[in-house]
Amino acid sequence: MNLLVAVAGWDVTPWVRRFEALLPDRKIVILGEPFDRRDVHYVVSWKHPPGSLAGLPNLAAIFSLGAGVDHLMGDDRLPDVPIVRVVDPDLTDRMSEYVVLHCLMHLRQQRRYDAQQRERVWLEDEHPPAAREVRVGIMGLGVLGGDAARKLEVMGFDVSGWSRSPKAVDGIAAYSGEDGLEAFLRRTDILVALLPLTEETRGILNKDLFARLARDGRLGGPILINAGRGGLQVEADILASLDDGTLKAATLDVFETEPLPPDSPLWTHPAVTVTPHNAAVSEAGAITAYIAEQIRRFEAGEPLAHVVKRDLGY
Amino acid sequence: MNLLVAVAGWDVTPWVRRFEALLPDRKIVILGEPFDRRDVHYVVSWKHPPGSLAGLPNLAAIFSLGAGVDHLMGDDRLPDVPIVRVVDPDLTDRMSEYVVLHCLMHLRQQRRYDAQQRERVWLEDEHPPAAREVRVGIMGLGVLGGDAARKLEVMGFDVSGWSRSPKAVDGIAAYSGEDGLEAFLRRTDILVALLPLTEETRGILNKDLFARLARDGRLGGPILINAGRGGLQVEADILASLDDGTLKAATLDVFETEPLPPDSPLWTHPAVTVTPHNAAVSEAGAITAYIAEQIRRFEAGEPLAHVVKRDLGY
Repeated sequence: MNLLVAVAGWDVTPWVRRFEALLPDRKIVILGEPFDRRDVHYVVSWKHPPGSLAGLPNLAAIFSLGAGVDHLMGDDRLPDVPIVRVVDPDLTDRMSEYVVLHCLMHLRQQRRYDAQQRERVWLEDEHPPAAREVRVGIMGLGVLGGDAARKLEVMGFDVSGWSRSPKAVDGIAAYSGEDGLEAFLRRTDILVALLPLTEETRGILNKDLFARLARDGRLGGPILINAGRGGLQVEADILASLDDGTLKAATLDVFETEPLPPDSPLWTHPAVTVTPHNAAVSEAGAITAYIAEQIRRFEAGEPLAHVVKRDLGY
Repeated sequence: MNLLVAVAGWDVTPWVRRFEALLPDRKIVILGEPFDRRDVHYVVSWKHPPGSLAGLPNLAAIFSLGAGVDHLMGDDRLPDVPIVRVVDPDLTDRMSEYVVLHCLMHLRQQRRYDAQQRERVWLEDEHPPAAREVRVGIMGLGVLGGDAARKLEVMGFDVSGWSRSPKAVDGIAAYSGEDGLEAFLRRTDILVALLPLTEETRGILNKDLFARLARDGRLGGPILINAGRGGLQVEADILASLDDGTLKAATLDVFETEPLPPDSPLWTHPAVTVTPHNAAVSEAGAITAYIAEQIRRFEAGEPLAHVVKRDLGY
């Protein structure tokens, strides 16, 4: 019952060490070193090279090292076994920290006050909106969206959500499907994108969608926060929409190309906040413990949790 | 049953208009215009000139237009009638917005990422602390401190509080008195000051206190957030403590002198965030409605709520 750690772009060694510590009775192997492909029962993947998981005859499951699995879905030779997403309370909490922080920064005009500090200007907005006067709309009401919605509610925001299929989150106005999208967008001042990246959602954050957001809000125009995936957004449309007033501001943690290229105009646009895809950094210890626990339960005859629906892509 | 509106530093006209609309059967008078002092039953004050409220023989109560009453306590000819503080849910919510925003900005190193954006640097902290690993200590567990504590707790922070006299807030480790101060400070990474300004608290945020804060936290040193009153802090000590590493950073909404003088080194210190005393702007409509409702209840024989204890000064 061996485990293959297939990681690209990250140093593999600390991951191997962690799994060795948590699963001392297993052999942990890595891509690029020799191993018997018949011995591999589980794969742990983060952006493995496409095709590299083909020909593993005894494979039982693939575990993604992140909440998203779009990095797996591009592999057309991906073995037909269950794919398991990380659902990690630590990662969820960190994402909500990010979402609440950036909603509050826009509500409280933090960038304006930062600029005033640099200019030594003491000037306050006489009629600042309170959170309850600002409508936050969350696209994607999975574990991350649901938690962020709940915490934004506690902070006083007027929160709604949208998801592909109907979902209920306590106390949140929940819209769904193409039919619900129009009403959802029309009542949204701050749009928070936490959608999975699928064929249906690629490029969904485009100028047609921005033009349907609320124009009558307290923040002087709609605001976009994308903490989901860069592939959701059309960056040329974001820039054009900021410049023609369709959007007031944008906070982006993810980009079409990452790292964001140095010549991207997003870096220097005065209405854009850029963070380096750090909204919800997975804490490696929590993720490895989650995977080890799932393997233990699976081998005890219990079902795997958080298995991806392949037809939906998440 | 007339009302005297005694306001300095603000335009009095909109306040008079609001009270006229809410209390159409009363005469609303203002300082500096002639009125019969025997006719005044209530005073609404914001920084009235000391002595200007003496000689009002039929005065029944003084209402402060803000949560703090230190602006009244400096008047040694203040009439001996009940003083009522504003306890406004709107103001409380806004203060909690500010406190949560600035705790999250420090947790998530927003100023570092702002600087990186300006330099077009894509670099993330590999082991950022989660909120649950950061201990926030709130000095002052009144209405404002209690609400901020509850919301910080929801965001995942490890919250405790300190107050002069013992107070219980659900789920919060609450310390009190001089005896409890040492243990409270020793477990505090982010100190949030929401204390009233009294003779006892003036200058309490000084280098002796900063030196007692936790040195073993995840943020690289203790952080001060003062959203209470400028008189709580010794600004020379804050600057010295930032420069010798006793403090890592400070977010200040209030100052010894307001507006903060243009030559104050706080404006440009790289570890200081300055906001122009806007943490909790009172929404005028909510405050006037609160006062009108208190007058109505008082005249119906019910007790005034939120009466200040003069000996404590808050």
